[in-house]
Amino acid sequence: MLAVALDRYVEVDVEPATRLVVRSEGEGSEVSDDSSHLAARVAIDVAGTDRLAITVRSQVPVARGLGSSAALAAAAAAASGAKDPLAVAAYMDGHADNAAASTVGGLVAAARIKNAIRAIRLPLDVSLVFVVIVPDVALSTTRARQLLPPEVSRESAAFNLSRLALLLAGLADSRLLEPEATEDRLHQDYRSPLFPAAPRLLATMAASGALAVCWSGAGPSLLGICRGTEAHTVRSAAAAGLAESDVPGDVLVLHPDLHGLVVDREGSGRPLDVRARG
Amino acid sequence: MLAVALDRYVEVDVEPATRLVVRSEGEGSEVSDDSSHLAARVAIDVAGTDRLAITVRSQVPVARGLGSSAALAAAAAAASGAKDPLAVAAYMDGHADNAAASTVGGLVAAARIKNAIRAIRLPLDVSLVFVVIVPDVALSTTRARQLLPPEVSRESAAFNLSRLALLLAGLADSRLLEPEATEDRLHQDYRSPLFPAAPRLLATMAASGALAVCWSGAGPSLLGICRGTEAHTVRSAAAAGLAESDVPGDVLVLHPDLHGLVVDREGSGRPLDVRARG
Repeated sequence: MLAVALDRYVEVDVEPATRLVVRSEGEGSEVSDDSSHLAARVAIDVAGTDRLAITVRSQVPVARGLGSSAALAAAAAAASGAKDPLAVAAYMDGHADNAAASTVGGLVAAARIKNAIRAIRLPLDVSLVFVVIVPDVALSTTRARQLLPPEVSRESAAFNLSRLALLLAGLADSRLLEPEATEDRLHQDYRSPLFPAAPRLLATMAASGALAVCWSGAGPSLLGICRGTEAHTVRSAAAAGLAESDVPGDVLVLHPDLHGLVVDREGSGRPLDVRARG
Repeated sequence: MLAVALDRYVEVDVEPATRLVVRSEGEGSEVSDDSSHLAARVAIDVAGTDRLAITVRSQVPVARGLGSSAALAAAAAAASGAKDPLAVAAYMDGHADNAAASTVGGLVAAARIKNAIRAIRLPLDVSLVFVVIVPDVALSTTRARQLLPPEVSRESAAFNLSRLALLLAGLADSRLLEPEATEDRLHQDYRSPLFPAAPRLLATMAASGALAVCWSGAGPSLLGICRGTEAHTVRSAAAAGLAESDVPGDVLVLHPDLHGLVVDREGSGRPLDVRARG
């Protein structure tokens, strides 16, 4: 329900054509280049026709808990002329929080109010740097969600509420950010079996200077939220930890993006950036 | 886990004496004036002796969900020379959030971190005005808590998390405050049987201009969070609603207090204000 936009982008270009053509470059280019592609589904839905040439260029790793599909859906919706790309993306992708961050930028809370998705921007200390461990292991959000028990204790719910307040205070002002702000009793522990190296990698980032650490979305990506001065050290430690764990993957150093969706209607194409979610 | 300090105060004065004497004026003066009085228990605990003359002057209605006991405990702890009045109050009263608001002032999140209570101040739009319906009906927080089921659905927990984010955004900037920000699936509905007029009174405040409405703590007090321009109208509507419901009580118009605990060590007495929680 909370997401932060980071500086990895998805560009989608949609043009009229005689038949559906989907081209994709960069991250996710291995997925189907046909009408089942999320960008195609969104564009066809918005444009009301499949006579479209769609080009996707993505810097956001797919199925890693980084919100790539929400970013792609928002970009595709906007590139197809949707009036409310957030609504389309939230509907087609199902992750309103990610879609909200991709659309609005910065730190965003999304809430469904009277059947509409409301994106609320919250204060974000832009000096924060996000070290992101991206294991080369795809994890379906659906599968990750299935591991979660449908009932939780009232105590755990209250615990997470108190941590959310701490986290929002710390994200607004990095001087207030503490390791406990990302403590969680509702998700992370249940998901560890899907990525057994996670607890150790999180501990490595915390020990090397990250102010707070957590899973990114449903994982398997992991975040180390850092001061800029610490980011390099945390990155090196994370890379070493990843190598030691024998888990292939990358470590990215990302920064908050405050612009959100950018629609460029000049020229023939409509390049469009949508921000990745951390 | 979140509380806001409002401008109703508790003053506690603690002096050495030959034996325990407790005097209390104002709200709560009908409760026992002996060693079982919360102020006495706190002062004796902190001072390590019961040879104390304790004077309590309180403007905070007792057992109404307004945090009177946390305010009293924090004031008594400070007046008795406690180094960490928040820790003492949270321990003796059990409501860390209320104690944190009374101690620090403003909008505060409290979280237990490594067995210590951490008070985190969050941004608060000081133009907000709180219309508070205080029914003349005592409600024990313990009893109110007993009504809550120990397990909640994951969906309800996530719902409340999303509402908390909305609420924090709205309390930081009243232009963002919406009725949905105080929606709650974990507490309020379960407590309505304790105060059946509550839903109608809340609706009355909302209809007359309050930006958002909710129970105050475990109730029975009810809050209408308003712009200053609307506060008077909301107050009148709340008073009329109360009269119609045949529930005796008061309607207060309170403002945020940003000072928190004030300790005055000048002169012979040590008057001390602690702020009520809304």
